[in-house]
Formats: sequence, C-alpha cells, structure tokens
Amino acid sequence: MKSQSVRELYRGQDSFIDSEVFVKGWIRTLRNSKSFGFIELNDGTFFKNIQIVFDEELGNFEKISKLSISSAIEVKGKLVATPGAKQPFEIKATDIAVAAESEGDFPLQKKRHSLEYLRTIAHLRPRSNTFSAVFRVRSLAAYAIHKFFQERDFIYVHTPVITGSDAEGAGEMFRVTTMDPINPPMADGKLDYSKDFFGKETNLTVSGQLEGETFAMAFKNIYTFGPTFRAENSNTTRHAAEFWMIEPEIAFADLEDDMELAEDMLKYIISYVLENAPEEMEFFNSFVDKGLLDRLNNIVSSDFERITYTKAVEILKEAKAEFEFPVEWGCDLQTEHERYLTEEVYKKPVFVTDYPKEIKAFYMKLNDDNKTVAAMDLLVPGIGEIIGGSQREVNLELLKERMKESGLDEKEYWWYLDLRKYGGADHAGFGLGFERAIMYLTGISNIRDVIPFPRTVKSAEF
Amino acid sequence: MKSQSVRELYRGQDSFIDSEVFVKGWIRTLRNSKSFGFIELNDGTFFKNIQIVFDEELGNFEKISKLSISSAIEVKGKLVATPGAKQPFEIKATDIAVAAESEGDFPLQKKRHSLEYLRTIAHLRPRSNTFSAVFRVRSLAAYAIHKFFQERDFIYVHTPVITGSDAEGAGEMFRVTTMDPINPPMADGKLDYSKDFFGKETNLTVSGQLEGETFAMAFKNIYTFGPTFRAENSNTTRHAAEFWMIEPEIAFADLEDDMELAEDMLKYIISYVLENAPEEMEFFNSFVDKGLLDRLNNIVSSDFERITYTKAVEILKEAKAEFEFPVEWGCDLQTEHERYLTEEVYKKPVFVTDYPKEIKAFYMKLNDDNKTVAAMDLLVPGIGEIIGGSQREVNLELLKERMKESGLDEKEYWWYLDLRKYGGADHAGFGLGFERAIMYLTGISNIRDVIPFPRTVKSAEF
Repeated sequence: MKSQSVRELYRGQDSFIDSEVFVKGWIRTLRNSKSFGFIELNDGTFFKNIQIVFDEELGNFEKISKLSISSAIEVKGKLVATPGAKQPFEIKATDIAVAAESEGDFPLQKKRHSLEYLRTIAHLRPRSNTFSAVFRVRSLAAYAIHKFFQERDFIYVHTPVITGSDAEGAGEMFRVTTMDPINPPMADGKLDYSKDFFGKETNLTVSGQLEGETFAMAFKNIYTFGPTFRAENSNTTRHAAEFWMIEPEIAFADLEDDMELAEDMLKYIISYVLENAPEEMEFFNSFVDKGLLDRLNNIVSSDFERITYTKAVEILKEAKAEFEFPVEWGCDLQTEHERYLTEEVYKKPVFVTDYPKEIKAFYMKLNDDNKTVAAMDLLVPGIGEIIGGSQREVNLELLKERMKESGLDEKEYWWYLDLRKYGGADHAGFGLGFERAIMYLTGISNIRDVIPFPRTVKSAEF
Repeated sequence: MKSQSVRELYRGQDSFIDSEVFVKGWIRTLRNSKSFGFIELNDGTFFKNIQIVFDEELGNFEKISKLSISSAIEVKGKLVATPGAKQPFEIKATDIAVAAESEGDFPLQKKRHSLEYLRTIAHLRPRSNTFSAVFRVRSLAAYAIHKFFQERDFIYVHTPVITGSDAEGAGEMFRVTTMDPINPPMADGKLDYSKDFFGKETNLTVSGQLEGETFAMAFKNIYTFGPTFRAENSNTTRHAAEFWMIEPEIAFADLEDDMELAEDMLKYIISYVLENAPEEMEFFNSFVDKGLLDRLNNIVSSDFERITYTKAVEILKEAKAEFEFPVEWGCDLQTEHERYLTEEVYKKPVFVTDYPKEIKAFYMKLNDDNKTVAAMDLLVPGIGEIIGGSQREVNLELLKERMKESGLDEKEYWWYLDLRKYGGADHAGFGLGFERAIMYLTGISNIRDVIPFPRTVKSAEF
C-alpha cells in the first residue's frame, strides 16, 4: 500500500477525507487511557503533526500505549474531519506497526528546552518545532536563491574552497595542510611548503568573488553559493567560522544595476519563503519574534531608499539619538548607525553608497572625486547591514595602486589583473551572508541556531 | 535603451527580426576589409555567437576594425534575417561603442588550444567554446539536482565542511588549523590541539552522510550538496582533492527505494540538461564524444537492470572477455568488470547490489546471510560506477560490532549511534560525485576540465 506524507494530507486534505490513508513518522507525544489513546505524529515533511486516535481494537494496543517519544511507527486508518477541533482532521487507526522503538530517555521531551541545551544535541534538535522550522526555511531559502538566478540565466560557479591565493585582505584564514604537524619539512629555516600536498601554502577561502569575476567576464551574469571561512577569534551571536555566502557578479553593469539586483533578490527570497513555509513563518512570528511578518512584508512592498554615505553621515550628525560611537565623515558606520537610518529615518531598507575608499576593499571602483568608491551596503530594519557590494575597479593602473596601498602583492593576482587587460567591461557584484539572511527570515538571534552543525571558536562538534 | 541578451535574440528571434536591438559582449573574431567588417560577438548568455556587420558609415570604423579579440563592445543596430547563411540572422550595426579594449596578446586566439594549455589559463578558458559549454552544463546540472529534490519536498542540508570527527574510514584527510606551523603548542610531547582554533583536531570532510542521516531522522527525506575533500596522492584524470558531492538520505526506506530514487534522479538531470542546453550538448556530441547523445538518450529511456554482486561475479567468471584483474567472489569489482557488465552484457545502466561486507563501509546494513550488505553501485556505460549507496545498519549492536571491526572508536560517534536508539527507522541513501556526473554529461575525460579551478596534487592555482 502506498503511503502518504503528512504534507500531502494537509495540502490536499479534501481528496483524502474519509479515505484509508497510510502514514509513517515519529511520535511527538502520546497519551492514553485504558481503552484508547492519542498520538501526535510528525513525519518530517510538514511542520504540523497529525493526530492519530487508536483504541483497544488494535491487537497491539498495550504495546503502542507504552511507546516512547520519538518511536517510529507506520499507521493505517481512515482520515476523518474533526470540525471544531484544533486540527482539521485526524486518523482513526486500524493498524499501527512499530518501525523502530525509541529508548525511554529521549533527550527531547515535551517540555521547553533552552536553545543552549539544544545546541548540545544538534543531531536531534531538528526533531523540535523550532529547528524543524528553521531548517526547512533554510532549505527553501537556498532553493529560492538558485531559482532566482537560474530564471535570469545566471551561471552558478563553484569557486574553490581551498585557495592558494594570499589572504585577499578579507580576514584571518585557516591553513589546509597534510604536513607532519610536529616535524614539518623545513628548508633554510623556513617551512618547506613545496612538500605540502599542493606544493604551496593553502588556506580555506574567505570569498569566491575574485574567481567569480573571471567567470562574469565570460558568462556576463554569474553567482556563487558556497562555504566561506573566517578564523576570527570572535565569540559573538553573529559570527561563525564556517558559513555560506552568495556572491553574484554582473558584467556590463554599474552600481545601480547591482542595487537593483540585490533588491530584487532579497524580495524574491522573502516572498518565496512566505509562500512556501506559511506554517513555519507563522510559528516564528508567534514564538520567536512578534514583529517578523510585518517586517518582512514591509521589505517586500517597499522601494528601497538610496542615499550616499556622505548624506548618511550628515543625517547621523544631526540626529537627536544618543550613539555610543560618534560619527564623522571617514568613519565606518556601526550597527547602531545603520539601524537608526533604516529603522528611524526611512523605516524601510536603505542602500548607502559611495563610502570613503579608506574603509573599503581594494577592488572597488574609485569614484571621480578620488575620495570615495562605488560601494553599497544594504541596511535593513532589525539588523543593519545585510548585503555589501560594489562596482569593481576596471582601470588596471588604479587597481594596481590600490593593491599596493592595501599591501597586496600584485604578482599573486596576475590572473585577476588579466581580467582588466582583456576586455574588462564594467562589472559589479555583492555578497550576501546566507546565515545572516536566515536569521533575518526567522527572527532567530544566534547564528549557531541557523546552521545544522555550527563551527565557532573552540567548537566543532559532530 | 534596454539591451537584449544574445540568448533572448536566439530564443525569441521572430519577435526581434527587423527590429532595433542593443547587445553587449566580447569579440570572439573580427575580420574586415577597407570598407566593412564582421564581428562574431559572444555575450556569455548563449553558446553561439551573433554576427555583427559593420561598415565605414560608422564614425569609428577605423577604431573598431583594429580592436583585439576579447574587447568588450556595445552594439546597436537592426537584426536582419540571413536566409541560407550559416547563422539565422545578423546585426547590421548602426553604432558600436567600445566598453573595454583588450590587449593584443590575448592568450585565447582563434586557433585550437590543447586542454592542458587551457588549464594554465583557467581564468580565461570559460571564454572558449568548450569551457563555455562545460560550465553552463555544470550550472544547469546543479540546478536540476536542486529542482529534482525540492519538487519532492526533500530538505537541503548544509553538512559541515570542517569536521571534528575521526576519518570515517573514507579516505585521507586535510587538516584545518590555525596553529603556528613551526612552533606548534605542545603538551607532554604531543601536539596540544586544545590550543588550536576549535580546541581539537579538525579536518576537511570526506562525506556529509553521517550528519545527513541525523536530518533524515527528523525530516524523512533530505539531501546534501556540498564540497568534499580527499588528500590522496593520486594523480589521475578522475581524482580531484576538492569536489562536490550529492548525498540524499531517505527514511522509512530500503535499498529498493534507494535505487528507484537514484534512477529517477539520474534521468531527471540528464533530461534537464538535454532540454536546456541543446546547443552545448550538440557541440559535445560533435567535437568531444561522438557517442554522447546516444548514450545519454539510452539512459533516459532504459529501465535500469538490477543484479546481485553474486550474480555479477558468476557472469564475469563465465565471460569470454580478457580481464586484467581476475574475478572471485569477495573481490572488489574493477572498472573493466563494471564496464563489461553495463556495456557488453546489459547495454544499459545496471545496479549491482548486496556486496560482501568486507569490501564495504561499516554503516551498511548487514543482510540476513551475514555475509553481504544491502549496498548498491550504479554502473553506466562509458565509465562504470557513477553512484554508490546502501541501506543503513539500524541495529545498534550490529553497528557497534561493524565499527569495531573497522577500527572506529564508538565514543567519537555517540551522536550517530543515538540515531539508532531513538526511533531509528530503516533508511538508505547514496552518493553521487558531481564532477563524475558532469564528465558523464559532457564526455570530457579529465576531471580538471569540469571544475572551474581544480585542486589536485601539487596544484592549487588561482
């Protein structure tokens, strides 16, 4: 007999009511009296449980009554409507088979657990409401991103995880090696990297952008979506050592095109998740972050504001708000400033553009004023910066100069410079931290709770 | 004026003929006489070039005539049909603007280059026909995989790249570290990993399967799609140190379900690519591998064969073919054996199941005969094994025994064993090496040519 998923029953309920159905899942709760009982069954395909009613007509009534939470069972019975009840229908079981029992000490009992505790059982936490919702949204958001770019004929590029390039100036890196850690090969008092696996020093990538640009110069529109790494000793709720990043790159394009793409993408992801995970989003809105749906709907329906950094600094200097960090032209904006702009001033997402070159990366296009670069940060209510991007410097001489100022060795980047020699059309791109986006979509405030098995300072469990 | 992509023009040509169009792209070839010239323009959105005709009516005719290959230009003009010509239409240019010139020594001149040479300019090779086709197919195949699983409500899981688990027995690993490589922290004559970034020894993952299983026990149907690593010193055309893998895992499922899923998935990917990259596939079939389309169409329309390992060994022992490696029950099948079975005997894809437990991994379900495990390998004409999978051992005691036999420390895998304690329903899964699949789809015979920036022994360029 073919089985149905709980998702099928909920989404296509009218066609199943009063039919025989067959479901397979795990017991979330079980309560029973002497002659009958109720099971809340979850099969992982749907946020909500389905209620199973069983009674002593079952040959194995006693056995079923004693099953522990998280036991796997297979249930045959009739799906009946339950007008007036909390759930729309339930299954009157005619047969329940035990697929796999659970031991009695299952660590996820019905009571509410702290998120900290659940992190210690990351292998089981997807069986809770919160994490079932988080990781379904994560999966849907990932797909929405692919769908968005593929529908626009962007090419998905797998940029390398192991990189032989120097640090790109974007942060501390993890070394990747197969050398003997105690007696590494030495030559002239230095490590002899020629003996390492790749014959040179290699690290985990901090960004796929530079490699992505090489593909944009061939395919026009490309995106990356892969893991990136930071070996930074920062134990915060917003930093992980391993996280995924989306980095589109578009050719024959300027900063305006870049912002348009970022705006379209963000709205697309949010809309897709709202449409495809309504139960999960309702749950987050009720139990995690009461303002969530309003905030997300506001983003989808807003035209994002665009202001220059110079204008932003003016506004902040005139603001009546008390900031911890003072604002002067030339300083980097802090989260408090970003949130003030997007939450208090504009009450919607804001692109801030044209930052001082000193606080931005070497590859950003120098503006005609010689002081600012064609960069943009997208600020959203609730968190501040969620996307950062720029038009790229395509002038070979200016680029070399900026690399020198940034202490980068141009010999290491010969291939990146080549892009400027051979038809280096204007191009632009941005980066979206995937986990940051999931936190924003769910209202979850700790990055450890949106990654299946998070890697942070002093923690790489499972 | 809004520009069109070359893809739009080819796919929607009827609506553009005799209209003014605006395209932006890179010069692939340029030839001219004193008063007119032809440009083959490629904008990266489409495999084929579009021909631009220009003449001395252009104010900058002289300048355009002298442009180097790979210069970026923006062309306005009328799209006119060219009945009888090789290409269906061309653009009669009324205006050509230079977006970015290319220097004269562009390394990809029109002549045919060896694949070996092109690997040394991996940052430019996507501008060639072959690599434009390879990387578009790679992008489409990746999307097809997501689409296949998402349409079936599978949850996409990002399993960790950095792993704190022991080697899982699947191969040599890369160490990930931030310790001082020359003077690492020591304690009692040993490396003091407690001082390393994660407070323990960490490596790059060789498989996301075990973590994937934890999610299958919550969501029922899941898949991973991420980078995996092997630090094996094997310099072959089929091995890379960094590659992507797809690992679905399905619960309440046995080996039959697993094979059905693998068959459906493979057919889906192939069909999607054939449908969405017809020009590229035609190119591969003409210039890379003449039998390609026949072979792929054969796969899509075949019902895959299913035989046991024991049967396969019988067939091979009776075969008249000369094998380099002799076959006996208990040995691992070599590529020559696999290809004989799928190419000579069945002439279509073949699942071989129920291998001797000694030659398979510890997590595979022991069959009742106590000698074989519920494993499957999918063999396809042209290469042999393309997918390997199994039903998983869910019996806690048997699993522990198999771990002991394999020299694994069960304390390291407490979380994996937990899955068997708490409702460990039957489940199964498989792994598909993404690059292996791309080689199969394109006919490209070296793995270095299907990865944007390949990482192999002694090579991590770009």
